[in-house]
Amino acid sequence: MGHTIHKDHIHHGWNNAFAPVLKIAPGESIEFETLDASSGQLNKTSTAADLEKLDLGRVNPVTGPVYIDGAKPGDALKVTVLSLKPSGWGWTGNIPGFGLLTDQFPNARLHHWNYDPGLTPAMYGPGGRVPLRPFTGTIGVAPAEPGLHSIIPPRNVGGNMDARDIAEGCELYLPIEVEGAIFSVGDTHAAQGDGEVCGTAIESPIDVALKFELIKGANLRMPRYVTRGPVTDHFDKKGYEVTTGIGPDLMAGARMAVSEMVELLSKRYGYEPIDAYMLCSVCADLRISSIVDVPNWVVSFYFPRIVLE
Amino acid sequence: MGHTIHKDHIHHGWNNAFAPVLKIAPGESIEFETLDASSGQLNKTSTAADLEKLDLGRVNPVTGPVYIDGAKPGDALKVTVLSLKPSGWGWTGNIPGFGLLTDQFPNARLHHWNYDPGLTPAMYGPGGRVPLRPFTGTIGVAPAEPGLHSIIPPRNVGGNMDARDIAEGCELYLPIEVEGAIFSVGDTHAAQGDGEVCGTAIESPIDVALKFELIKGANLRMPRYVTRGPVTDHFDKKGYEVTTGIGPDLMAGARMAVSEMVELLSKRYGYEPIDAYMLCSVCADLRISSIVDVPNWVVSFYFPRIVLE
Repeated sequence: MGHTIHKDHIHHGWNNAFAPVLKIAPGESIEFETLDASSGQLNKTSTAADLEKLDLGRVNPVTGPVYIDGAKPGDALKVTVLSLKPSGWGWTGNIPGFGLLTDQFPNARLHHWNYDPGLTPAMYGPGGRVPLRPFTGTIGVAPAEPGLHSIIPPRNVGGNMDARDIAEGCELYLPIEVEGAIFSVGDTHAAQGDGEVCGTAIESPIDVALKFELIKGANLRMPRYVTRGPVTDHFDKKGYEVTTGIGPDLMAGARMAVSEMVELLSKRYGYEPIDAYMLCSVCADLRISSIVDVPNWVVSFYFPRIVLE
Repeated sequence: MGHTIHKDHIHHGWNNAFAPVLKIAPGESIEFETLDASSGQLNKTSTAADLEKLDLGRVNPVTGPVYIDGAKPGDALKVTVLSLKPSGWGWTGNIPGFGLLTDQFPNARLHHWNYDPGLTPAMYGPGGRVPLRPFTGTIGVAPAEPGLHSIIPPRNVGGNMDARDIAEGCELYLPIEVEGAIFSVGDTHAAQGDGEVCGTAIESPIDVALKFELIKGANLRMPRYVTRGPVTDHFDKKGYEVTTGIGPDLMAGARMAVSEMVELLSKRYGYEPIDAYMLCSVCADLRISSIVDVPNWVVSFYFPRIVLE
């Protein structure tokens, strides 16, 4: 591992004019230090009040950018996730105005995780044990369009995809739109379910080692990735509780399915609804069970039973 | 197993006034014979031309209905899937005007599966081997609203959910809206991916044994279910190829992700695009990776690598 980029080299938002902190040749690898998604505004002693005061202009910092020699628009950047070194601390927050059910859960709430970096399932009282699987929430390259772009929305060039399987061993392919690619990474998570429904995962500083290669003239339209093994076997042994949302709108279906799960977990296990919602965000998966039986679709929300049984 | 309902007891559409073919007490079990989704209009010698001539008024037959003694509106019907006995023959079709990418694939196409009822992965040339996992595509109770309702859309009382994990060992809970529940089942599939993207799965007659119980006063709003073990370990050992669709609309994202996978598979393995699309329908899963990073969401399409590698 030749290169390291320290966590003082972060930036907010995407801009293809940002000066690279490192130039590398294809085939090289880099270890990136990352800050948590609050850019260090939250720490082990923070409270929900601190979450309310968060400067949103500084959330989701990414480390970089990196210039890859020879990268041209139309090429793809192949990024292999070599390893992730979790820090052992993280937070999950319900941020007012953010999240799938923000209308139902308008108040700030903050949960601290002090987890075993060796990835023993992390506790979430009462009785929850969340299997961990670290990954990079934000990983991408600069868009062609000049100027500063918000870090929050994911785009065709990647970014804040929050795709939980961009984990160790994953090979990610990103469409390149500018010379040098201008790559950055951050928003590391110790665990997350598909959807990231409350808006945050186990937000945790994690060092990430990545290898970079170029696929010339790939002309990808969207990111794609390859996993080399199962993506759910760390939590699927006891199966799932599944709720559904059925109707003509996928977003409404997702909201219904998550609401139903929050109700099920809070009634059965005594969680405050907001805590059940935050627990869902770090371990339960949104799936589209059917999308062709006009005019209604089925969105399903899969909660792994091993977390609570 | 005391009761059997033969496949001559099918009906088309839901209607709470349909006369029950059987009355049972809670705790009893029934074996249902089923017809395939064409109601026998297609058989082992059918061609795409037969698919075009399909009488759509007779598709998706269900076997039943069954009256459960003591079932009242507001109760939930607990249905445990005891066993499924596959017939060994099935079909996957691209039906003009139906399916997620029907605009891209307007022409009829029919594939026959002659599979091992012992569930060896079924062949799909060139080189595809699809792991099988039979389930009930349509399973539900009659809606309260009088009259005949199309069988095609799933509803809050279940029906054509095409949820691939309502398989052996699953416990399904359905909201009951009328006295006796008025339950029927059909549209059995030997395998399907989440989404059923081309509009059909491995459509196959399969005998289904179900046990019925009542949960009084459950007041469910939507179906929910429980799986007792993993739901992807029959095909996830080698991981996944994953394509994405990123943008402000989940439906557009799903269409993009599926289009990208069709392109990837047809280029790499030499499939006709329509065949890659139909293969995806029987084994690849639509997932919502992130649904909170306003204004863009990430829909991902997971194709199990074991099918082609």
